[in-house]
Amino acid sequence: MIYLVYGVTASGKTSVGKLLSEKLKVPFYDADDFHPSSNIKKMKNGIPLNDSDRKPWLKILRKNIESWQKDGSAILACSALKESYRSILMDDMKIPMQFILLQSPISTLKKRLESRKEHFISPTLLDSQIKTLEVPEYGIRVDSNVELEELVKLIVKKVSKTNDLGVIGMGTMGKNLSLNISTKDFSVSIYNREVKGKEENVAGDFANKNKDYNLMPFNSLPEFIGSLTSPRKVFLMINSGHPTDEILTQLMMILDPGDIVIDLGNSYFIDSQRRSKFLAQKKIHFLGIGVSGGHYGARNGASFMASGDKYVYKMISPIIEKISALDNNGKSCSSNLGSDGVGHFVKTVHNAIEYGEMQLIAEIYHLMRFHLNMNIDKISNVFKKWNKSDLSSYLLEITSKILDTKVNGVHIIDLIDDKAESKGTGAWGLINSIETGVPFDTLSSSLMFRYLSSMTDERKMASDTYQINLKKGVIDEKIIEKAYSAARVINHGLGFNLLQKTSVKYRWDLNLSEIARIWTNGCIIRSKLMNDWIEILSNKSFEHPLLHVSVVKELKKLQPSLSELLSVAIKLNCSLPVHSSSLNFFLSFTNKSLPSVIIQAQRDFFGMHGLNFKDESQMKNFNHQW
Amino acid sequence: MIYLVYGVTASGKTSVGKLLSEKLKVPFYDADDFHPSSNIKKMKNGIPLNDSDRKPWLKILRKNIESWQKDGSAILACSALKESYRSILMDDMKIPMQFILLQSPISTLKKRLESRKEHFISPTLLDSQIKTLEVPEYGIRVDSNVELEELVKLIVKKVSKTNDLGVIGMGTMGKNLSLNISTKDFSVSIYNREVKGKEENVAGDFANKNKDYNLMPFNSLPEFIGSLTSPRKVFLMINSGHPTDEILTQLMMILDPGDIVIDLGNSYFIDSQRRSKFLAQKKIHFLGIGVSGGHYGARNGASFMASGDKYVYKMISPIIEKISALDNNGKSCSSNLGSDGVGHFVKTVHNAIEYGEMQLIAEIYHLMRFHLNMNIDKISNVFKKWNKSDLSSYLLEITSKILDTKVNGVHIIDLIDDKAESKGTGAWGLINSIETGVPFDTLSSSLMFRYLSSMTDERKMASDTYQINLKKGVIDEKIIEKAYSAARVINHGLGFNLLQKTSVKYRWDLNLSEIARIWTNGCIIRSKLMNDWIEILSNKSFEHPLLHVSVVKELKKLQPSLSELLSVAIKLNCSLPVHSSSLNFFLSFTNKSLPSVIIQAQRDFFGMHGLNFKDESQMKNFNHQW
Repeated sequence: MIYLVYGVTASGKTSVGKLLSEKLKVPFYDADDFHPSSNIKKMKNGIPLNDSDRKPWLKILRKNIESWQKDGSAILACSALKESYRSILMDDMKIPMQFILLQSPISTLKKRLESRKEHFISPTLLDSQIKTLEVPEYGIRVDSNVELEELVKLIVKKVSKTNDLGVIGMGTMGKNLSLNISTKDFSVSIYNREVKGKEENVAGDFANKNKDYNLMPFNSLPEFIGSLTSPRKVFLMINSGHPTDEILTQLMMILDPGDIVIDLGNSYFIDSQRRSKFLAQKKIHFLGIGVSGGHYGARNGASFMASGDKYVYKMISPIIEKISALDNNGKSCSSNLGSDGVGHFVKTVHNAIEYGEMQLIAEIYHLMRFHLNMNIDKISNVFKKWNKSDLSSYLLEITSKILDTKVNGVHIIDLIDDKAESKGTGAWGLINSIETGVPFDTLSSSLMFRYLSSMTDERKMASDTYQINLKKGVIDEKIIEKAYSAARVINHGLGFNLLQKTSVKYRWDLNLSEIARIWTNGCIIRSKLMNDWIEILSNKSFEHPLLHVSVVKELKKLQPSLSELLSVAIKLNCSLPVHSSSLNFFLSFTNKSLPSVIIQAQRDFFGMHGLNFKDESQMKNFNHQW
Repeated sequence: MIYLVYGVTASGKTSVGKLLSEKLKVPFYDADDFHPSSNIKKMKNGIPLNDSDRKPWLKILRKNIESWQKDGSAILACSALKESYRSILMDDMKIPMQFILLQSPISTLKKRLESRKEHFISPTLLDSQIKTLEVPEYGIRVDSNVELEELVKLIVKKVSKTNDLGVIGMGTMGKNLSLNISTKDFSVSIYNREVKGKEENVAGDFANKNKDYNLMPFNSLPEFIGSLTSPRKVFLMINSGHPTDEILTQLMMILDPGDIVIDLGNSYFIDSQRRSKFLAQKKIHFLGIGVSGGHYGARNGASFMASGDKYVYKMISPIIEKISALDNNGKSCSSNLGSDGVGHFVKTVHNAIEYGEMQLIAEIYHLMRFHLNMNIDKISNVFKKWNKSDLSSYLLEITSKILDTKVNGVHIIDLIDDKAESKGTGAWGLINSIETGVPFDTLSSSLMFRYLSSMTDERKMASDTYQINLKKGVIDEKIIEKAYSAARVINHGLGFNLLQKTSVKYRWDLNLSEIARIWTNGCIIRSKLMNDWIEILSNKSFEHPLLHVSVVKELKKLQPSLSELLSVAIKLNCSLPVHSSSLNFFLSFTNKSLPSVIIQAQRDFFGMHGLNFKDESQMKNFNHQW
């Protein structure tokens, strides 16, 4: 941390700086000692310095700030009256700096000047300096018209009695994250907005209930921000979209250059790119970090998909790493994956894969329960058994727990309704797949299925009207296991291919293997399969994840079971949309000639959209005279 | 048409107006004869009128303009110096008006004033009127400093020697549309942009090649616009997106209030809503019209899905109706379906249904050709036979023609590549389905399939690597026919449901039956099925098109065949993604309990997203303590 003590002549910069140096045990430097020889010569001859004289001097100071920072902290006394001077000193604000402006009434300053005997400074100079001083909105301002000892005590209090970071938004995720961080020996300020009758004193009540934790609650945003050490680290855990923009507009007004805003919400990646630019106008840093793990992960270790400037990320990575889940090798499931917005994009694809994984399990449950004469306990046992095999996954684990759960002696699964909702990340994933032109059939089927499930009135009428005969049958458990396994591999292949293609589109250079690694623990789609894919995806030269040699070997073995399962399920009038779309994708993907030849011919017939001959030496983009 | 002859005192309004009235055989009115009694009193007393005196007078004139228009045309002489006065006269510009400004050098005006003996007008008044005159960008301006007879001849030439309408964009569609319109006894100006080396004198060459048609070519946009009768009717047949915005910005500068721009391109409906507002700033009208029918329809009769103000539409409907295809009752396949943007939205859904219909035929071809041992001729014959049955459709008809087409003795279908492209309407349709939360599985599968077909390198590698065994088998032709029929009904049901739900969302009050009617001819998805659906969709009380009694009856009969087809196809390793997704949708839609119950439980388990009990008297939106 660099403490810049600044102000007009006679404001007490040197004496305050020196005493502060003693108190904080941090070396002190006087900016005047760093003038280039040309300036010293001018000053000796009584020629006042102009702005172009000051520029090289400020640049020398900046270089020194960089090396002082490497050794730890430093205090620098410097007039730094104009924003343009301070701007050179702070540069890109990647070095944490605390600005301390000393202010006094002009009468005091004049008295001080008169008492100085060693060198005469004209009172006109003071007047001109006061005129020149541009007081910024950021930093600390103190009235230096008090006793020195008292003044420095006040400054020490202001710069040190502050919390390491702040969390905005005390929903389930925000609360759990705050507890998690505070157990890692960080002091945390927490803030929640006040909404009369709905959200009142939320942060206060939460801190009260958790007195053993190092939490300091606020319901005023400026006070919350004031409680944080510089550069401030503000974690947002609020609803994405408009609420996020609203809070950023407020933060823009009270944060200082160099402060860091970390958006942990499920934001749309394009929004994150825009927000980063918005905050950069005031040199406030922005990091977009996708988080997966639900409330449990937030409390006990989640997966963090970060993005943003790597130097800025370094300033918060000690916190992120401590609250992450750990992979099999004990490394934290967090990573800075690329430039602005990338983290939230990767989170979108995480959730897109999650949609497919959830639906696949749900389909297997449905098939077993309503078509294969298996009761809930039996199904739960199958899932438990699978969870000890290569099929092991968090979602499978919780589904068996769900199947075991009873309310008043009745399985909860038979009590709750079947309207599956969605919060938008699946939709974003599919829109990305559309905009990049990458097929993601398992996602589209999952999403369409959720929409259908919400059409409760129409569905009721349809089941009453059509009275479709849901038949019973038998399918070998091994077949089901292999079919489910095949569909999962295809779903993962499509998800990682979307990452791969989008990475090429935007030149992100995503490390797919590293993404798989941070998805092996903490997040919702963690599984044994994901662990295997770290290795599979480490080969950067593959064209498509489903073309990797070990995936090919696996799918060749599994696909016949997927076909068999579906062929039987159809006969039972059992709909398995995502298993089905995974098979259809696979069979089309591996087929050397597709029916789309007819579609191209139709398009040329009615719309003259053009044809290409297969033989590349022949005509391209021609219209046939039909 | 109302001709407003206006200008300062002594500019010759009355004499020009009277002679013009003789020449055009249109009654003449002098605005001064319409003053309310309060104004007449003031003027008699020599008190000059102020703006609040003029307001009631201008409103009386407007009322008269409305009744004159009902009787045909009229000429009105009126000073109308300020834009605010003219604004009252033109009101919303739904009455066609031609503004004729008489301008003369001040010396001429002064001389004329002096020669007037009947009533003295002070030269100061003239000076003040010249200062007051606000010369607009729109309308005709003539120098009245010439002999009266000559001047009126010039005006007659300017207002009458013009074409009925103009077409911008001489691509295939624009050319064919222009020919079509010109054969219906309209005179057509045609315009194409100049792009050196790429698009040079396109309109000119086209008119030259079609001298028997009433086409007048231009390569200058202002001259093109100048050639049109007022209010000008400008049809855009250019690429959607940026090119459309670009031309509208140009048109905004040269068109007059009351002119009409008709966008016939495949524009996104939200863009059309925005563009309508953009042009309305200058009281230029905008109509967004979706057109289907390809180049053949454009030439011989297409389907027009119009939208925009009904009075404005009335001004162009005589043209649209004459270039439309006719339905079974001889009524034109065109309709104004609602407010701004609706026409382009309906066209998007038309194309979305088209995606499914094309893919379904392609899948049947593929199954027959590669898995059922049928050669191309045999398949074509089946399609021809079906086309004489209830399955009859334009797409089936052209597909059999495609299958019959040979190049150098080889079926064209075996020569061209299988990469199916898309131009965006399918993507828009799916994005709408996502944004409105309406499942459209047949569209999503069709679109994903097109994306997959474009992944040529990966597909080549996949077919080489996996070497899937494409098996041969037998399926009864009747089964295939019924299965295809079922999938089509479901695809139509999903498409019309998207229209239905979006109509509710935006309160458009779409008439689905009327939409089906204008889709029975001219457009790409015209079919016998569509004809039947006019009646089916006329019942406005249904919840979902697939719940209509006759559709239920039909699907109950057909669905077992769809299931059988798919069950066998899967065994043959034949992928039929859209048939498959139609069946899966249907079976889920008609199932009273869906596997999504598991998804909701999982969402609450890991994310506390909330559950509802099925029993509505019990808890809603609660979190279970898992």
